[in-house]
Formats: sequence, C-alpha cells, structure tokens
Amino acid sequence: MTAPPIESIHSHRYWDRSIEPVHRVDPGTEVALVLGDASGGQILATDGPEAIGLLDLGQVNPCTGPIAVDGLEPGDGLVVTIVDISPSPWAWTANIPGFGLLADDFPDARLWISTVSGGRLHTPIGAEIEIRPMIGTIGVAPAAAGRHPILVPAAHGGNMDIAQMGAGSELHLPVMVPEALFSAGDAHAPQGDGEVCGTGAETGATLTVRLDRASRPHPGTPWFTHEAPVLDRRCTATTGIGPDLFEAARESTRRAVELVVASTGVAPVDAYLLLGLIGDLRISEIVDAPNWVVSLHIPARFL
Amino acid sequence: MTAPPIESIHSHRYWDRSIEPVHRVDPGTEVALVLGDASGGQILATDGPEAIGLLDLGQVNPCTGPIAVDGLEPGDGLVVTIVDISPSPWAWTANIPGFGLLADDFPDARLWISTVSGGRLHTPIGAEIEIRPMIGTIGVAPAAAGRHPILVPAAHGGNMDIAQMGAGSELHLPVMVPEALFSAGDAHAPQGDGEVCGTGAETGATLTVRLDRASRPHPGTPWFTHEAPVLDRRCTATTGIGPDLFEAARESTRRAVELVVASTGVAPVDAYLLLGLIGDLRISEIVDAPNWVVSLHIPARFL
Repeated sequence: MTAPPIESIHSHRYWDRSIEPVHRVDPGTEVALVLGDASGGQILATDGPEAIGLLDLGQVNPCTGPIAVDGLEPGDGLVVTIVDISPSPWAWTANIPGFGLLADDFPDARLWISTVSGGRLHTPIGAEIEIRPMIGTIGVAPAAAGRHPILVPAAHGGNMDIAQMGAGSELHLPVMVPEALFSAGDAHAPQGDGEVCGTGAETGATLTVRLDRASRPHPGTPWFTHEAPVLDRRCTATTGIGPDLFEAARESTRRAVELVVASTGVAPVDAYLLLGLIGDLRISEIVDAPNWVVSLHIPARFL
Repeated sequence: MTAPPIESIHSHRYWDRSIEPVHRVDPGTEVALVLGDASGGQILATDGPEAIGLLDLGQVNPCTGPIAVDGLEPGDGLVVTIVDISPSPWAWTANIPGFGLLADDFPDARLWISTVSGGRLHTPIGAEIEIRPMIGTIGVAPAAAGRHPILVPAAHGGNMDIAQMGAGSELHLPVMVPEALFSAGDAHAPQGDGEVCGTGAETGATLTVRLDRASRPHPGTPWFTHEAPVLDRRCTATTGIGPDLFEAARESTRRAVELVVASTGVAPVDAYLLLGLIGDLRISEIVDAPNWVVSLHIPARFL
C-alpha cells in the first residue's frame, strides 16, 4: 500500500530553512511527490512562443516539499533513491531570451511543444528522442538563513540539472539543517549534459523517492550513483579549445549548432534547442596548459 | 599489400610548418606510423619513480611525421580515419610534480608500470581495465610560422587528449598549410575524459590511419565521429558546484579521490592515477548562473 502523493500545490519557489515541512517521514520511507513543470504551469500545451515573453520568472521552478526526515542532523548524509519518474504526456523546450549558453547568439523567443508516447518524445522538428526522465532540481534546505534562489545549484544540491538523475539513481546530499528538509522539482525527459540551451524537455511528473540516512557522514558536496541507459555508441562531437572552459564550451556548442543545421536543414535556434536535449558536454582535457578541450557529443542518428 | 610503417625515429617534438615531410601520400591512402610513448623512450618498463625526476621535458611527446597529403590546401578539411591502434604490451602512468589537475595536492612523483594482456591493462594496484587505445596527440601543422609547443592543443588539433580518439573514429582537422602536414603521437590505453592526473596509460603503438580530403571546407575547429565502447552503465559520480568550471572540476576530482580511497583503501595518489584512466569529467550544467556543475563519473565496479 502506498501513501497518496504530495500534491504540487505544496511547493516553494526559493530555498529557505524556515519553510515549514509539508510532510514528515521516518528514514527508509518511500514517498511520492507530484512535481509541477519548470514554468509552474504558466506554459500550456496549446501555447505559442509569445508565452515565453509573458513568463513571470518569480513563479518558475516550483519545488514540491519540503519533506522532513525524522532524526537527521547536520553532518549526516541524506540518501535519495529515485524509484520512479512518471512524466506528463507532453513537454516544452524553449529559448528564453537572456538565458542559456548561447544567449548572445539567440535573442528571440522560441517554444517547442513536444508530445510523449511510446517511450519517445516527438518534437516539432521531427526528431524522435527516447525519453530518459530525470529530475533537474533536487536538494535539501541550505544551512544559511534567508531565501536562496531556486535556480542556482549549490552545496545543498538544488537546480543541479544532472542528466543522469533518473530512476535507479541514488543521490547523496549533505544534511545542513535538522530533518534535512528535502524538495524536488523541474523534471526533464530528457536533457543532455550541460543543458546548453537552458531548458530540457520540461515536464510535470510524479516522482517516487526513498529517503534514508547514509551510513557515513557526508563529505560536503552532492554525489550520486546512476545507471544511465546508453542509447547511442555512434556519436559526432565538436570541440572548443582554449584557456577558458566556459568559452571552450560555447565554441563547441556553436560548432555543433552549425553541424546540426548543415546536416538536417533545421533553423539554427532549433538546432540549439535540440542540443539542449541530446547534446552532451564533456571535458576532454584539462591538464595540457594553457589550453583545455571541451567537446559536445551528439548521437550520430540525429545528424 | 601494405606499405611498411613510418618508424618513430621520424618524429618531432614541437609543431612547425617548416618541418620537412617524411612521407607524401595521395588523398585516400592508408598509412601506418610507429609512435613512441609520451616519454620518448625515457621511461622503461623496469623503472621506478626516480625516473620521473630524471625526465627531460624537452624530449617528451614525440610525434611521428609529418606526412604530406598531396593537393590539400588551407581551408580544406583533412579527414583522418583511425583504422587501427596496436599498443605496446606495457604502459606507464605517473604523477609528474607540477603537472595534472591536482598538482598542488600531489607534490611527489609516482610511477605505475602496467602490463597489457588479454585485452586488459593490469595496474600495480590490482585494478584491471579494458584497454581502449586512443591517440592523445594528432594534428596538422599550425598556420603561424615558428615553433609551437607540442603539449598544447590548439585549432590545428595536436595534444587534444580526447578519450574517444580510438579505432573507428574519424577526425576532421582544418588544413592550415599546403599538404596539411599530419603527425601523431602520445597513445593511451586507456584514458578518461579530462585525463585528470595528467597522464593516461602511456604507451607506444602502431597507428594505422587513412588520410583523405573532406568534401566540404572545414569550419575551423577539429570535430570527430566516434563509436566509443560503453563498458559500464553503473557509475558513481562526484560533483563540483560553483562559478568557475576549472575549480568545479578540481572539486569533483578531489571528492572522487576521497571516494576511491574510502572504497578501496588505496593511497590517495594511486586513486588520482586511477582516475586519469577511468574517470570521466562531464559538464552537467552550464546555464544556471552563477553556478555551474561539473561531475566526475567512475565505473562503479572500481569502487
């Protein structure tokens, strides 16, 4: 028998240790949370790109919770086992002006509404992508009093946007306040390493997690295990080479946009959005001073 | 019938467009090159860590070549198809003081001599690693006259140390001087994304490549296709979170060293060397300003 899920109306749009828990569990308990999408319900499946301009950024990234875990204390580790993620049957992906790795290159709003069926995301440009639902924002209350922005990840976890945070993963978070105060939101199905365009396939979801106390004290930054499905061995990768990893990441992303455009004929902004879903940023080399190499890997079947 | 390989005595230790080609081929030709190891033969299979202190850094990373490809001109793309890499039966991995992502943390020289047999690298700490031979340094002569350091990758390729540069990969390099002037060296079997300790499993090898002209002009930074074997789905990853990707990479690597030490009982420097071989650095998130997330992924079976 499973308890009813915690509804998304029990959510917060900033991190704050003083937010009252909406639920309290014993360590080892499985709990389900209904997560609103990253727009907080502002973007509808029937919307066009004008919806991006109307977004109230104060309402984005709602996180359901917090959930208090009985007996946990600062210094402990909270083990979050992701048991299941059931996404909504549709998702949005957008270029939000001023946001994303290539914000300077893409000043205009763009919105995709994709549908999910048969285990695949059907995008408006015709690309069909296996869903790999994952949780973008997942964390505990930070140690310092006051409000902390919900969009910025930090030592307490939060909006880490880690592509491998899917079912079967086990996230170890540092407990910073009594009872941990766990929350989650911002489901994606899927998102590439880096989330280069600033969004994944943004979707609501029902998340089931088991919350437990770690057997050892926590080292202080989040760590996790995962069993990410590897769908594609054949990939094409672009590079950025130089002394600044951020600029190298931008360079490799720009080259990847050009490559997708040349191969598929889609508009540059659509190539950019596609890369947010299926492009993976790796640091290839970070020791051959003064130049580092960042590469962006694209499954070859999308080219 | 295959032509005899170009021996490693035909090598250079800097990039320079004025180096005379040792061989000239037509586009589409397959050619084999014998590559010396990254120490240029200074480290022997019988050596101990004192060999690191005796390294003449002016002699490292010899590259066999250059090979002229008839008819190629600046603006063209050179397509390098890696047909085969046959590594030597042994490899070295080292902490070289002052070099590597955590040079400040590991000031003392350390040297591993590993053997290769049955498709596996047998390390002195008992870790057995499937070999995935790849070429660390692979490029064409740079456009600017004069000597360019062999250890620093740049737009012409060179010491990119890309883990996926193995057999089956196809590297597209920008031709910068007439006839391209292709060279390669620095084989690894294997190396993780990032090469965090500064070395992979450094080995000599015979490299067979096909050199061809690309059908389109080159966009200016190297790009490649690969079919990297994915050996492990179950991984453990550490994170570094903050506004500087380089520092975040260091943080995730430090946490990974601690994790390997706690799980296996090896010395911290040995954990660091192991991560150079099997740890993969990814950029998980580069859009949630001001903090980015770098993660270092370790196949779980090594923990």
